[in-house]
Amino acid sequence: MSDASHDARRRYSYLGPAGTFTEAALKQVPEAAGQEWCPVANLGEALDDVITGCSDAAMIAIENSIDGGVTVAQDALATISGLRIIGEYLVPVRFVLVARPGTKLEDVGVVAAHPVAYGQCRAWLDDQIPRHRHLPATSNVQAAVDLVAADSSVDAAIAPPGIEEHYDVEVLAEGIAENPDAVTRFVLVGRTAPVAPPTGADKTSLIVELPEDRSGALLELLEQFAARGVNLTLLASRPIGDRMGRYRFVIDAEGHVMDERVADALLGVKRYSPRVVFLGSYPRADRVAATTRRVHDDETFRDARDWLRGVIEGTPDGDA
Amino acid sequence: MSDASHDARRRYSYLGPAGTFTEAALKQVPEAAGQEWCPVANLGEALDDVITGCSDAAMIAIENSIDGGVTVAQDALATISGLRIIGEYLVPVRFVLVARPGTKLEDVGVVAAHPVAYGQCRAWLDDQIPRHRHLPATSNVQAAVDLVAADSSVDAAIAPPGIEEHYDVEVLAEGIAENPDAVTRFVLVGRTAPVAPPTGADKTSLIVELPEDRSGALLELLEQFAARGVNLTLLASRPIGDRMGRYRFVIDAEGHVMDERVADALLGVKRYSPRVVFLGSYPRADRVAATTRRVHDDETFRDARDWLRGVIEGTPDGDA
Amino acid sequence: MSDASHDARRRYSYLGPAGTFTEAALKQVPEAAGQEWCPVANLGEALDDVITGCSDAAMIAIENSIDGGVTVAQDALATISGLRIIGEYLVPVRFVLVARPGTKLEDVGVVAAHPVAYGQCRAWLDDQIPRHRHLPATSNVQAAVDLVAADSSVDAAIAPPGIEEHYDVEVLAEGIAENPDAVTRFVLVGRTAPVAPPTGADKTSLIVELPEDRSGALLELLEQFAARGVNLTLLASRPIGDRMGRYRFVIDAEGHVMDERVADALLGVKRYSPRVVFLGSYPRADRVAATTRRVHDDETFRDARDWLRGVIEGTPDGDA
Amino acid sequence: MSDASHDARRRYSYLGPAGTFTEAALKQVPEAAGQEWCPVANLGEALDDVITGCSDAAMIAIENSIDGGVTVAQDALATISGLRIIGEYLVPVRFVLVARPGTKLEDVGVVAAHPVAYGQCRAWLDDQIPRHRHLPATSNVQAAVDLVAADSSVDAAIAPPGIEEHYDVEVLAEGIAENPDAVTRFVLVGRTAPVAPPTGADKTSLIVELPEDRSGALLELLEQFAARGVNLTLLASRPIGDRMGRYRFVIDAEGHVMDERVADALLGVKRYSPRVVFLGSYPRADRVAATTRRVHDDETFRDARDWLRGVIEGTPDGDA
Repeated sequence: MSDASHDARRRYSYLGPAGTFTEAALKQVPEAAGQEWCPVANLGEALDDVITGCSDAAMIAIENSIDGGVTVAQDALATISGLRIIGEYLVPVRFVLVARPGTKLEDVGVVAAHPVAYGQCRAWLDDQIPRHRHLPATSNVQAAVDLVAADSSVDAAIAPPGIEEHYDVEVLAEGIAENPDAVTRFVLVGRTAPVAPPTGADKTSLIVELPEDRSGALLELLEQFAARGVNLTLLASRPIGDRMGRYRFVIDAEGHVMDERVADALLGVKRYSPRVVFLGSYPRADRVAATTRRVHDDETFRDARDWLRGVIEGTPDGDA
Repeated sequence: MSDASHDARRRYSYLGPAGTFTEAALKQVPEAAGQEWCPVANLGEALDDVITGCSDAAMIAIENSIDGGVTVAQDALATISGLRIIGEYLVPVRFVLVARPGTKLEDVGVVAAHPVAYGQCRAWLDDQIPRHRHLPATSNVQAAVDLVAADSSVDAAIAPPGIEEHYDVEVLAEGIAENPDAVTRFVLVGRTAPVAPPTGADKTSLIVELPEDRSGALLELLEQFAARGVNLTLLASRPIGDRMGRYRFVIDAEGHVMDERVADALLGVKRYSPRVVFLGSYPRADRVAATTRRVHDDETFRDARDWLRGVIEGTPDGDA
Repeated sequence: MSDASHDARRRYSYLGPAGTFTEAALKQVPEAAGQEWCPVANLGEALDDVITGCSDAAMIAIENSIDGGVTVAQDALATISGLRIIGEYLVPVRFVLVARPGTKLEDVGVVAAHPVAYGQCRAWLDDQIPRHRHLPATSNVQAAVDLVAADSSVDAAIAPPGIEEHYDVEVLAEGIAENPDAVTRFVLVGRTAPVAPPTGADKTSLIVELPEDRSGALLELLEQFAARGVNLTLLASRPIGDRMGRYRFVIDAEGHVMDERVADALLGVKRYSPRVVFLGSYPRADRVAATTRRVHDDETFRDARDWLRGVIEGTPDGDA
Repeated sequence: MSDASHDARRRYSYLGPAGTFTEAALKQVPEAAGQEWCPVANLGEALDDVITGCSDAAMIAIENSIDGGVTVAQDALATISGLRIIGEYLVPVRFVLVARPGTKLEDVGVVAAHPVAYGQCRAWLDDQIPRHRHLPATSNVQAAVDLVAADSSVDAAIAPPGIEEHYDVEVLAEGIAENPDAVTRFVLVGRTAPVAPPTGADKTSLIVELPEDRSGALLELLEQFAARGVNLTLLASRPIGDRMGRYRFVIDAEGHVMDERVADALLGVKRYSPRVVFLGSYPRADRVAATTRRVHDDETFRDARDWLRGVIEGTPDGDA
């Protein structure tokens, strides 16, 4: 297990089997090329691999997920400690309908599909195969795997494009998802380590719990960011789970924890919140730099600190 | 179909089969007693029944759902027009593990379960049956139904307590869900109609889209409520779905649309938002009245309007 | 006193004598031309004339005052009921130094001046007449009047340009005020009467007391305006006078009380504040229309009310 | 001038002559006892004495002033650099009416009084001496001085209690001011020097200009304080003077610049404002400690900084 080849290569876990959108995300990571890729059955395994040191990183779907993502992943990052997001990747969401070779569209009765994929393709299915029935599958690729199994009661499956290269299936229809512009956002997750320096186009992810005893608490939380000119690209509420009406918030903020305005906002959030989980500062998938006004520049923050020091020390014209 | 007995009885759709948590919610509705109850296969059918007039109302899970709820239901209410929430009900969430009679815990390999129910019980399963495999089911009761089917490859199923009264199964373990205090919130949904008058302990549900072009837009939305002393009991973000980063918000506010402060907040929200869906004002399941300060009382609102009228008309001492 | 000629003509009180900046403001009122003008000795007399019905209106300095204005006038409007501002006028502030004919600058020892005028001209005096002494006068014109009195111990006086047309004085220097762009803002005050309709470029003046028991009260007050897109052109704090630390605020807001956004802001302020005095909505001196966004238009307010009515009545598509 | 005795003693300037409220304030300063006290004619001289080093400190009225204070003093502190407030003192405001020995109330025609004192006593004068005339004086004590001058045309003067011990006058009436609880707030002003450490019950004074180009700018300024739980005990607007509608704000905040929450608020204000003048942190006259919530404690600020450092360095459980 600990032979030289293992030591030399990095190991990446991802939701398999080969052909998933998650694998497509992992293909976008230059550092992962030529390293060991380990397909796993679900999110829990992927994160366990990282926590235990079995893998160096795991690629997981985090938003608008197709392969089981979003809330499960958000809740996992909120509750499992020792993890850090180190990269972000976008994968376009496209679906094809596949069947065993020779099957015709009019023969299709039972369609296997991951529930989220099914939701995205339901309008097309209702229109084209009004009498179809849906059989839930655990992943989009698994639906295709089930399809070709010997004893399958499934007639067709919803799967990612390219699935026909991996499995003995035929494409009955392409582009069957409702929204042609849909993408899934993936994050690469490693173990807690020093934050990599800013690239100029970064994102910072947090989980924040609100103090219980105050209405308007979310308003105050948002003001911590707004007051420093820090835009949020994601704000999702998740029940904490101990009782109805208690939420934590999953937050993606523009900028890097080493940007003065982000650091200052995080200090404000930390003072205010009973629990903050810092999930990481990492380069944005879209490489778009945050737009800030001069008042929120690093230099403005440093000038203000210099001024305050002068004021306290009684430097002449410290108030100019 | 349109015989007298049908006309005379109200019809309620709910996620079946008998024994689901949804049926337990419907049992809490006094008006539904003795009326026609219609089990359906999924949320879409339930809402279709209401829209088409086939049913008078549908009971659906809306938050912390076990039977498929939350996001699917929220998105359905956000996009299907002509619906109104008319009641709210809470059902405690408990699970049992059931099997065919004679099965022992150590024999269990494959466990059928709705994915959300599986998530709630996974800690117990990992501890007690470490080698188990999960087979997703479309509802908690359907898992039990599948279990007793002739050709079943399933060994056990996660189901609601009392399932053994409906099906030929044996309870292997009780109380296997992680959180003993968990509840699911259900809403009763009818067609759009005049809002029923306030009861003094009401809730108002909305779907609100944010204007695209402004950071801090959510902050402004929340201020519409905070400025009128209207507390929110739910704020959930949902992707609008047209592209990454665009959200709508599912909001439950304390109070009734005929309460002055709520009406005023809704006016503010409506002016501000490109799209607001009013989902209804209805009695709260917990019967807790909103706590407000005098500044947000109906009387204070009326006094202010009287004052303003006097000011414009030039009434002496209108400014007292 | 009640003869026909009195009945037929309107009467205007102003701080005299002839030649004051207040008279210059009154000359800007088209309706006042050819009517009866009544010079008075101080602000109290001017407002008493209006309250008692002796005059129809009084011109008073309200901001950046030279002739005794600002705080005294603000406090008077805050505490005397039955008054309304009906117009606003701007008068450029210029000063000349005058003396008895034959006096040379180097002979000047004692300079009579209203204290505020003295403050504006002090830099010039300190530079040109370093050894001068200041004798306070009750008005700028009174200083000149005192100068020409038989037994005067005054050598020179600060007065408005044109004073030499009214009194036997000689101008020693012109443009002696520090700020060549200074203006004084005057308001025309009448008795409480129905508000005149909007002109499209209006201002609304208020006096607002803050609730005692809450820090952040001013913040909440300002949010009432900001939330409706109502800009403030003046916000001045004045001690209420009952004890240290209690303030009322003198507020000028852009827009007219019949503009929906201003009316809504006033309703918010009225609900919130223990005491609001509406001083009037009147045309702006600078004729600049308020810039508003569509979200704060009258039409947007009306649309929102229509929507809310439809929502309560259950109109189909009321939520579109 | 520079003899040993001068070097050894501290010198305090104050608005004289002896008997003024300003002298009463100076008597409250323990360190000033036995030192050199220098009466001056006006605020400008008092501050000049400090700037030039002629005096070590000057006592000046700053709020609800009787002896010429408030706005003139606020504007002086806003524009003269090199000054610091080092102490705060409260003096009750009481007035007596005095006259030359033998004068009766019914003989009084002309009343000399500082305009502010006159305003406070006007209700009493209007009631008791309806036909009186007011002659403005430069200070309350000067009014009494003028009264006893050989060639005086003055019949009575408004002056502070105890004036009869300094001048040959008789008290005609006591307690003639409208508000028996009125106080004047004085500050002791020295040259810029290192800030003295916190006492636990301190105040911090600032002058802040707002950025020109943004409505809602004051709202943002106030939020800098509110977001850190820093209460304001004074917020006064003063025209900057360059043109109508531009204001600076005179701010007194609870707490000391070395309190973390105050320092953080000042950093926020400094980043935001085009010009901030720090006037000093000094013990409060009323010795009342600021009430803060735990979220704004020094310790909370330090904990947040420690957390952020751990987060950046990747310390395990830095997110706990």
